[in-house]
Amino acid sequence: MIRFECDYGEGAHPRILELLQETNYEQTPGYGEDRWCRLAADRIREACGAPEADVHFVVGGTQANLMVVASLLRPYEGVISATTGHIEVHETGAVEATGHKILTVPETEGKISAAQVEAVLAEYADSPVPDHVVKPGMVYISHPTEYGTLYSRDELKALSDVCHRYGIPLFLDGARLAFALGAEENDVSLQDLAELCDVFYIGGTKCGALFGEAVVITTPACKKGFRMMMKQRGGMLAKGRLLGVQFFALFEGGLYEEVGRKADGQALRIKKALKEKGVPLYYESTTNQQFFVLTEDQYAVLKDRYSFSDNGPVSGGRLVRACTSWATRDEDVDTLVADINQL
Amino acid sequence: MIRFECDYGEGAHPRILELLQETNYEQTPGYGEDRWCRLAADRIREACGAPEADVHFVVGGTQANLMVVASLLRPYEGVISATTGHIEVHETGAVEATGHKILTVPETEGKISAAQVEAVLAEYADSPVPDHVVKPGMVYISHPTEYGTLYSRDELKALSDVCHRYGIPLFLDGARLAFALGAEENDVSLQDLAELCDVFYIGGTKCGALFGEAVVITTPACKKGFRMMMKQRGGMLAKGRLLGVQFFALFEGGLYEEVGRKADGQALRIKKALKEKGVPLYYESTTNQQFFVLTEDQYAVLKDRYSFSDNGPVSGGRLVRACTSWATRDEDVDTLVADINQL
Amino acid sequence: MIRFECDYGEGAHPRILELLQETNYEQTPGYGEDRWCRLAADRIREACGAPEADVHFVVGGTQANLMVVASLLRPYEGVISATTGHIEVHETGAVEATGHKILTVPETEGKISAAQVEAVLAEYADSPVPDHVVKPGMVYISHPTEYGTLYSRDELKALSDVCHRYGIPLFLDGARLAFALGAEENDVSLQDLAELCDVFYIGGTKCGALFGEAVVITTPACKKGFRMMMKQRGGMLAKGRLLGVQFFALFEGGLYEEVGRKADGQALRIKKALKEKGVPLYYESTTNQQFFVLTEDQYAVLKDRYSFSDNGPVSGGRLVRACTSWATRDEDVDTLVADINQL
Amino acid sequence: MIRFECDYGEGAHPRILELLQETNYEQTPGYGEDRWCRLAADRIREACGAPEADVHFVVGGTQANLMVVASLLRPYEGVISATTGHIEVHETGAVEATGHKILTVPETEGKISAAQVEAVLAEYADSPVPDHVVKPGMVYISHPTEYGTLYSRDELKALSDVCHRYGIPLFLDGARLAFALGAEENDVSLQDLAELCDVFYIGGTKCGALFGEAVVITTPACKKGFRMMMKQRGGMLAKGRLLGVQFFALFEGGLYEEVGRKADGQALRIKKALKEKGVPLYYESTTNQQFFVLTEDQYAVLKDRYSFSDNGPVSGGRLVRACTSWATRDEDVDTLVADINQL
Repeated sequence: MIRFECDYGEGAHPRILELLQETNYEQTPGYGEDRWCRLAADRIREACGAPEADVHFVVGGTQANLMVVASLLRPYEGVISATTGHIEVHETGAVEATGHKILTVPETEGKISAAQVEAVLAEYADSPVPDHVVKPGMVYISHPTEYGTLYSRDELKALSDVCHRYGIPLFLDGARLAFALGAEENDVSLQDLAELCDVFYIGGTKCGALFGEAVVITTPACKKGFRMMMKQRGGMLAKGRLLGVQFFALFEGGLYEEVGRKADGQALRIKKALKEKGVPLYYESTTNQQFFVLTEDQYAVLKDRYSFSDNGPVSGGRLVRACTSWATRDEDVDTLVADINQL
Repeated sequence: MIRFECDYGEGAHPRILELLQETNYEQTPGYGEDRWCRLAADRIREACGAPEADVHFVVGGTQANLMVVASLLRPYEGVISATTGHIEVHETGAVEATGHKILTVPETEGKISAAQVEAVLAEYADSPVPDHVVKPGMVYISHPTEYGTLYSRDELKALSDVCHRYGIPLFLDGARLAFALGAEENDVSLQDLAELCDVFYIGGTKCGALFGEAVVITTPACKKGFRMMMKQRGGMLAKGRLLGVQFFALFEGGLYEEVGRKADGQALRIKKALKEKGVPLYYESTTNQQFFVLTEDQYAVLKDRYSFSDNGPVSGGRLVRACTSWATRDEDVDTLVADINQL
Repeated sequence: MIRFECDYGEGAHPRILELLQETNYEQTPGYGEDRWCRLAADRIREACGAPEADVHFVVGGTQANLMVVASLLRPYEGVISATTGHIEVHETGAVEATGHKILTVPETEGKISAAQVEAVLAEYADSPVPDHVVKPGMVYISHPTEYGTLYSRDELKALSDVCHRYGIPLFLDGARLAFALGAEENDVSLQDLAELCDVFYIGGTKCGALFGEAVVITTPACKKGFRMMMKQRGGMLAKGRLLGVQFFALFEGGLYEEVGRKADGQALRIKKALKEKGVPLYYESTTNQQFFVLTEDQYAVLKDRYSFSDNGPVSGGRLVRACTSWATRDEDVDTLVADINQL
Repeated sequence: MIRFECDYGEGAHPRILELLQETNYEQTPGYGEDRWCRLAADRIREACGAPEADVHFVVGGTQANLMVVASLLRPYEGVISATTGHIEVHETGAVEATGHKILTVPETEGKISAAQVEAVLAEYADSPVPDHVVKPGMVYISHPTEYGTLYSRDELKALSDVCHRYGIPLFLDGARLAFALGAEENDVSLQDLAELCDVFYIGGTKCGALFGEAVVITTPACKKGFRMMMKQRGGMLAKGRLLGVQFFALFEGGLYEEVGRKADGQALRIKKALKEKGVPLYYESTTNQQFFVLTEDQYAVLKDRYSFSDNGPVSGGRLVRACTSWATRDEDVDTLVADINQL
């Protein structure tokens, strides 16, 4: 069985394991106050062109999301998200468990627009009963989205502008950020994120690390008390240096983008084969996730050999996701491409 | 200015004030453990044909909703509701503030169907990732709905059946229950509610009381710890007897239904005038709330003399709600009817 | 049975009932946006000498406490309270249910001192692990305390000073404030409270109203979003004018202090009788609550005729509380005094 | 600088790193549904003699604690803990952030007794106002305690008995469990824990793993929905197999006890030196944490060379903790012992 079902099917990029090995006996203080966390944070600040940013390393994406939301909102505020946002659909109510409502807007290719956000904010501003409804207090987007699609710099700029015009922060979930940075079409740099978002995170778990995400807070007003929030929600790792070491490895010498480029390239080979075969693509993704529609017959042929993420029946067959990672092997893609050609 | 904007514009039905006056110097224990609460609970149990039901008196509707939801759900469960449910749209995130997600389904005339609920429950039961999504743990409906419409006994029975087939409770918000019981078309009795719902509440605030709602819990598994929940969320009144006295007055001698009938009758007179004038009705309500569409010109004529609830622009003009109450005076309805005729 | 067990055993002061009666058919907007709430808030602002204060009317004391705490604290902050604070011992974990820890300090006669508060704040400021412990974010006191004792103006000033030196707000629970204002020894005026506290509330439920408390917020930074918090937690009354009417009655013509003076006077008559009989007083209260130790024999004699609050066995017998209210009748106190004399 | 300040100063035991390395390219499903998690859970069930137990791997200790508490309690229930319990003092209010109060009882050598727990439970059972106070719903203990001390089997049995007599679960925090299992004086086996506790966890982070704790739930009523709780609170690792691999390494071939024995042995060497020198020991610990009182002069001598955990001034000097781990080197202990001898 060759697994294309997700981008966290293997362990970590070998350079990360090597550095963990090399530093294993080093004694460091705990909770992120070690030299590796400092070094990694410095590298990230440099990469973002944001020397004043706070950088916090946390264990996972759901945690990053729930801590940022709970940290930025007042108790009666909610977070605007696409109906397909990870926080809305795949975190078992993690945001609501912190007491906050998610205010959903419909997505287009997994994205939401500045106009949609403005509509929500304007509706609240004009509400005859503003005390009786949840106040939109921040915006959540993901990049790449849950469908592998990308915001353009212009789209992101427009979202940022509307947020700041209404005085609320923009938060970007970068669980798969490497695959955006590694995509040819991408025109959003880390510097752009640092400039346009108030908080964002750089995903490690899905981008070559064993685990871990780096939360970057650029807006001073959003920085307050985040370490306390991390400790309270179980997001502060005792051996914090494990995260420092991993992110240092990712951001020293360009490994992070390399991981993204590699996986995106493998995904595009699959995409190309699908297109040539006439298999319909469900979203126009240029990153490591490809969604496509297989007939039941086609699915029956492939599923014994490959594990995909099965998104259930849609018109024309079954919606299937193939995902590549830093570890996807050329020969496995070759085999899949060959099998697609035979469909 | 004659107010038709809501059903809580006046104080309380005079019989309630009288009984409060008469009992004012009586000394009673606090927190609902007095003889008036006992008497009122007995009357309600009798009216519901539910001698084993727990009856709790709480201060308001938002409280009743949030306490019932928080009491019935496990931390990772959510509540199914219409997109127009009061808990979803007009309680400033009260349910989410208890940690729970609202799982919305589209409404038809303010109602949801057994088939819709079953679809949500079946989707969860079939989910490939049941640990990653919120588990539907109960159903919330309102009767009359936020649009003044009514569930039929058959519809309610079907909802009850699907809930119990999937092992989750059905909760009915009866903030305006008097106006259902008082409606000619209504075929759902208090006994039906006690039989088909696991928890429901009988509204007082909007139905002639100064304030207060009576939560009725018929299913033994739903009873546990509700008084503790009430105290914790600030829903247990120190002078609990005030609620007992009011609900005793409402349920002694049929006042509760009388209040509903009176208000519904006034609303139907307005509805008739609107229909005759050709003003479009937005929902087919037979209770004390009537939604209709006025042209901007019509609205301009009426709004100086009457206060309505303004629901904003819709196709054809402006969506307006007129509401009657136990206190709506014949002469005020006469005047409005005359003015509608002149539009 | 003559009840001295609490100060909420009867309904409301007759002047309040009269005004509710008089205004019963008046039509007003809901949710505290009516003229009675405005008038009552104005009277309170005048009485406090605080023309800029926000005044919000809420249903009960537990609600007032939980909403103020949840509104003032960040998620990782806690509230400093005496071990005997109402929020710590008698609200079923209402504060914790909003997500916040109570940081207790030992009480002396129900009170805590500026030195104690400073010690907690200094300990946190010096903590080697400030991210791992709850940050003290506000101070809660009650006046009169749960034991009927009073803070002096100097004590309150010292508490206020230390809070503000450390940048945290001081919140005073005035559920029984009338009995402080009515006490001869009291040297803390409403103006003092407005000046020294950031938020406090003026109790209605225990001080002659049917129910309701008036939350007064003087510090601008503490005002934000309080009405949303009220709606979310079920503390915003639909017929808000009921609270406006009641507080208008209490603050028009000095009724509030009158209620306090009356009850305090009755309590002092009981205290005098106890002292003369040699019954030990447990706290030095000059307000409407008197705590004293009866032998089991003495208790056996009195308990058939009077209901007291029984605080269980203590050295020397049983700790008993007698409470008076606006409604306590002279003849009932006469009888009790006579019976005490006979012990 | 030689670090004795904590037991998480280094990375992971080499056998763990090796197995992570060996399995790095293995493709597995995520979220704990891989073969390594199954294998590790099987080993743990065997070691506990509990074939029916649920075993869940989570990222850290604070998370394990907050998820177990939130999973076992109803909203109005609290958890009994020593005043020195980790959940009470060092988790930034993590338990309260889930809505629950911690009901503290004083500790003796870091432990609480069955009699103390019974007193709390009996007081609640006898409370005249059970609806107004937090209901004790579970007991939390740690073993070894925060002071390195151990419960005896008899003490644990007595705690278990009182809990079950009152119908509440016993939860044991085993963040440092290896150091109990490795201690000569310990008479509590994993089988005992499985028999006497309803839920406990086996610490990895402090016991040789990179990170991770294994939550063991033996009581069927406590099992419900725990994976959903894990996902919701961010405790479910995407690459769950990392935890499976680590715990497999720890429980295959007795590594877990070996880690404990090694660290305990090193700690006892330090303890012996302290005793011989006459340095007062603050608690009678036989595990990897030793608390002792250094004079300021002694502390000044040692602190340049060694990092200890500094617990601040106490009578006689400064309370200091030395901690050993799986990685503590003989030569470092030799040096410290020599320096102690020179004090």
